[in-house]
Formats: sequence, structure tokens, C-alpha cells
Amino acid sequence: MRVVITGAAGFVGRKLASALAKAGRLDGAKITELALFDVVEPPKPEGAVRITTQVGNIAARPDVDALIGSGTGAVFHLAAIVSGQAEAEFDTGMAINLDGTRWVLEACRKLPKPIKVVFTSSVAVYGGDIPTPIKDDINLLPQTSYGTQKAIGELLVNDFSRKGFLDGRSLRLPTVVVRAGKPNRAASTWASSIIREPLQQAETVCPVSKSVRMWCASPRTVVQSLIHAYELPAKAYGDNRGLMLPGFVVSVAEMMESLRRVAGRKVAARVKFKKDPVIAAIVDRWHADFAPKRALKMGFKQDKSMDDIVRWFIEDDLAPEHRAALG
Amino acid sequence: MRVVITGAAGFVGRKLASALAKAGRLDGAKITELALFDVVEPPKPEGAVRITTQVGNIAARPDVDALIGSGTGAVFHLAAIVSGQAEAEFDTGMAINLDGTRWVLEACRKLPKPIKVVFTSSVAVYGGDIPTPIKDDINLLPQTSYGTQKAIGELLVNDFSRKGFLDGRSLRLPTVVVRAGKPNRAASTWASSIIREPLQQAETVCPVSKSVRMWCASPRTVVQSLIHAYELPAKAYGDNRGLMLPGFVVSVAEMMESLRRVAGRKVAARVKFKKDPVIAAIVDRWHADFAPKRALKMGFKQDKSMDDIVRWFIEDDLAPEHRAALG
Repeated sequence: MRVVITGAAGFVGRKLASALAKAGRLDGAKITELALFDVVEPPKPEGAVRITTQVGNIAARPDVDALIGSGTGAVFHLAAIVSGQAEAEFDTGMAINLDGTRWVLEACRKLPKPIKVVFTSSVAVYGGDIPTPIKDDINLLPQTSYGTQKAIGELLVNDFSRKGFLDGRSLRLPTVVVRAGKPNRAASTWASSIIREPLQQAETVCPVSKSVRMWCASPRTVVQSLIHAYELPAKAYGDNRGLMLPGFVVSVAEMMESLRRVAGRKVAARVKFKKDPVIAAIVDRWHADFAPKRALKMGFKQDKSMDDIVRWFIEDDLAPEHRAALG
Repeated sequence: MRVVITGAAGFVGRKLASALAKAGRLDGAKITELALFDVVEPPKPEGAVRITTQVGNIAARPDVDALIGSGTGAVFHLAAIVSGQAEAEFDTGMAINLDGTRWVLEACRKLPKPIKVVFTSSVAVYGGDIPTPIKDDINLLPQTSYGTQKAIGELLVNDFSRKGFLDGRSLRLPTVVVRAGKPNRAASTWASSIIREPLQQAETVCPVSKSVRMWCASPRTVVQSLIHAYELPAKAYGDNRGLMLPGFVVSVAEMMESLRRVAGRKVAARVKFKKDPVIAAIVDRWHADFAPKRALKMGFKQDKSMDDIVRWFIEDDLAPEHRAALG
């Protein structure tokens, strides 16, 4: 089976590509080609699977048509620009996040048989004055352009699935922590920075207060969820292919305590607090309390401990020189 | 003020154009031009207002940009293809209902000041396994492509409004009865036909059973609601520019009784019943029980009697020769 990943140079995309290359199989089928697409050259993961890469623009329909040609058996559509950038550059967000998703679905529609498509939506689809904890059947009132574009993507995935053009699944990802790499333009980027940067022996500034609570999930669990979402039969989704993924609630204070327990007081002291009113205003409107009943019933896993997540980052993503510095 | 109506050759569009031409004012401002747009030449209503018409394709961005040029002070965006056609011709539905709405919003965004935009959404945005009566804050799980495209339009109207690009309002119209003219490709077209055709001295076939119940609104009330929606201040809408309009529940049996009471037994006997399994299957999935609490609180009016609606059709839309035949 030919498996396509869009956004394969991104953090979650790279983790997913690695997991699939290592497994060599997906839903019982042998992976004959792992086709990695992004706006920059995606890194090739290790494994016995044949890897191809394509650099292109997801908003350009010919690029997407060239990617999802005949022979494609599975698509993981992760390509997107993040919340902060989509808010600052409205047209770019519409092109990449809305048109890009539409072209992916349209390209899949042209395939001879409907294939499974996993689309990464986001908790940014939730917003407005809604009761908490947020339940599965809540109305979506996104308060960012990013959230709006993701909610539209979900509607399209539902309709393309209902029409039998493809067999889609949309996962509303919690904030993924700890992300490797550099800070990005997501309004939540600090949630990874306050763990990653001190472990990389750098100081960092947390722009929100210690009492801020976030709905998070670890990279390990998110990758596992993407594969589980793919493997579930269509009927498990019922009326709605859009699904709130399980996450866990953690406050900034609790993140700091975990960092201190796992890596020591000296490391945790590298985080300074200085409120950024712009970031704080966005984050203040985010919800942290969710009741992901449907996903838990469908067998999706939930992270249990922030300490584990700090440890997994050290194991999976921290460079050897920084790991050595931890002693 | 220059007021634009898209879909101005359609049934609701013509009624709205007539009402605005007659009033000469909107929200306290004098209407200096009523610009009517449709894919066919829209009829010019009577009144003292200057009327201009433009024939074009709402899915073609240059046509929309030509329509909504500088000087435009208000837009009523009604242009759409109906549910049956959007289901049969997926690409046409995406072009007209999704791209068309996006180009209207984008054209408004280019204006020097944000203007009020009223967008006609539909009860087709509701679907799936949801509790009844349907409340204002229910999750939207449309089960048709038409409903999907309308729900996406609402998300765009919300985001363009939140960004300050325009000041939008999306009204979820109930099934409008009695429509004048010919049957169209809406799956609900029979709801008008079973009143209109017998009053026009023609036989008609009702494709659903007498027990079927519909959430309806009269053309008079819908036009009044479009104007009221425009005139309300933005803050009346709160987090969500999408609004369930008040309708009233009526069964096919009750519609037949009203027709008999108002027009006589002979007229009502022109309706024959023959189930069409395709139409019946679509209509079976429609909801009839709604609780439009928010709209009632905002001062939107609700129809009270099917007898009135039959009478209004005779007064407003029935040709003189048919009216004479009623005696």
C-alpha cells in the first residue's frame, strides 16, 4: 500500500513517518511506499520501507494531484499553517488550511476506490460561550481563523465521506507537548518551549501565568491515535467523522514541577515568567476541560502523567550532548 | 445607500427586492440603488428606488467583484443552488454555494468600511442523531452537501465578522411555503406544490405521506426576518452570527385541511398521494421540532396559522385568472 503523509516535515508528521517506516505495515497491509510531502524537503525516516519525498505547495491543486495519484491507498493530511500565523496572515491560512484540505479531498475523490483519510483538526474548533467540561456533541464556534479553517475541513471530510468519495476521519488534536525543534508561530508554542529549552540548556520566557491550564497530549500518544483512527472501521465513527481526542489537563505550575522532578531544580530555574498580553489574551480564551467520552469508548489512549511526557522527550528528542548535561 | 441582493431572480430574492424597493429605506438610510444580481435577468420591482441589474455567475470571482464595488453599503447574499441539485451535482454545489459565498465575503472585505451582510443559511445544517426539539446551541452535522455548504458559509461569516472584515448575519431559513413559480430541485419543493398547483387549477402529486411534518415559514415572514436581521446591531448576535429562524410545524394533513378550509374541497382534491421513495427517504431524515428561543428573544416573528399562509399566497402570488376561479 502507498501511504501519503502531508506536512511530513512538521513535528507530528516526522514522528508519524518514523512510526510507519518502522512498523512497515498499516492496518494489516504492507506499506510499499511512504510518500512524504511538505513545503520543505521532509527528512527520510529509518526503516525497510521505500520512502519518496515531494516538495510542493498544498494550496496548489496540481501539486496535490501529483502527490495523490493512482495507487495511493492511505492519506494522512497533516499539512497546515499554525494558529498564530493563520491569524496574522488570513489569506495564507485560507489557502493552506482550507484550499489545501479541499484539494487533498478532491484528489482522493478521483481515486478508483474510496480510501481512508486521516485529517488533523484541532481543539481550536472549540470556542465561544460553551459549557464545560466540553462534551463530544458541542457546537463548534471557533474564535480564530485557524479553528474556523479546521472546522470547515471537518465538515468537508464528513460530506466527502457521506458521499462515498473517501472514508475520512478528523481528529481534534490537543496541544502537543513536548514539541522538538524551534518555537513556531502557534499561540501555544511556549507550552513546549518551557520544557524543551531548559533541557537544551537555554533560558526561556513563559508568556502566561503559572495558573494557566492546558489540554495536552504527548507526541507518542498522538501518533498512536493517528494510526488507531486509521485502523478503526468507518462504522465506529457514526454520524460524525470529527472526534475530540483524549488529552490531559496540566497547569503551567504542574509542568514546572514535573520538569524539576525529572531534570532537577537547576534546569527548571531556566524558565523565567514575563506575561505577554497578546499571547495571554488568546490563551485565556482556550478551554482546558474536556470530556472525550466518545474517543475513550473507541479505544483511543490518554496520557497519564506529565513526568512521563518530560521523560519521553528526553528519550525521543533530546540531543545526546544535552542528555549528557543532565547527568 | 447601495444595496446588493444576490439570487435576486429567485423567489425569496424577488420578494425581498420588492419589499426594499417599496420601502425605499433600510435601517433608517435612504436606498440610492438596489443592485440585483442573478444568473438570469432579475425582474425589476416597482418603487421609487433606482434599480440596476447584473447577470453573472456567483462562483466567478470577477463577476462578484464587479457587483460589490465601492459604494456598496449592504449585501443580502441569497444566491444558491437548492438541496436536490447540490446533492446531484456536487461540483456545482461547491462552486455556487461555497465558492460563491466566499467571493461575496471577500469582495465585502475589500470595501473601505465593514458593511452588514445577511446570508441565507438553512435548516439543512441540522442533521444526524441529535436531541429534539433542536435548540440554538446544537452541533451542526449536515447530512446533505447543501447543508454542508451552508454550514461552511456560516463559519466563514462568523470568522469574517470576528476579524472585522464585515458585519455578517446568517439566517437558517425554515422551508419557505408557499413558493410561487414552478417546482424546483429542492427536496422540499412538494411542500409548496401541494398548495400552489391546486390553486392554479392543476393536479399535483405529493411524494410523502400525510403524517410528514415540516418546519415552515411564510415568504412574508422570511422577508421581514431578513430585514430585521439586517437592522439588529452586531452585539445582538453575540458569539454566533448563525441563527435559527422561527418557523412553525405543520403536517401534510394540516396543510391539506387549510387548503380545503380556505379554497374548498374541490381544490384540495387536486392533490394526489403517491410516495416517491427517494424524496421520502430524504424528508424522513429532516427535523421538524425546533426551539428558536434566541431568535424570538431577538424580536424575530413567527407564523401562526397555515390558513393565513394559504390566504397570503392567494393575495400575493396567485394570478388573477386563478383567483377568479376560486369564486
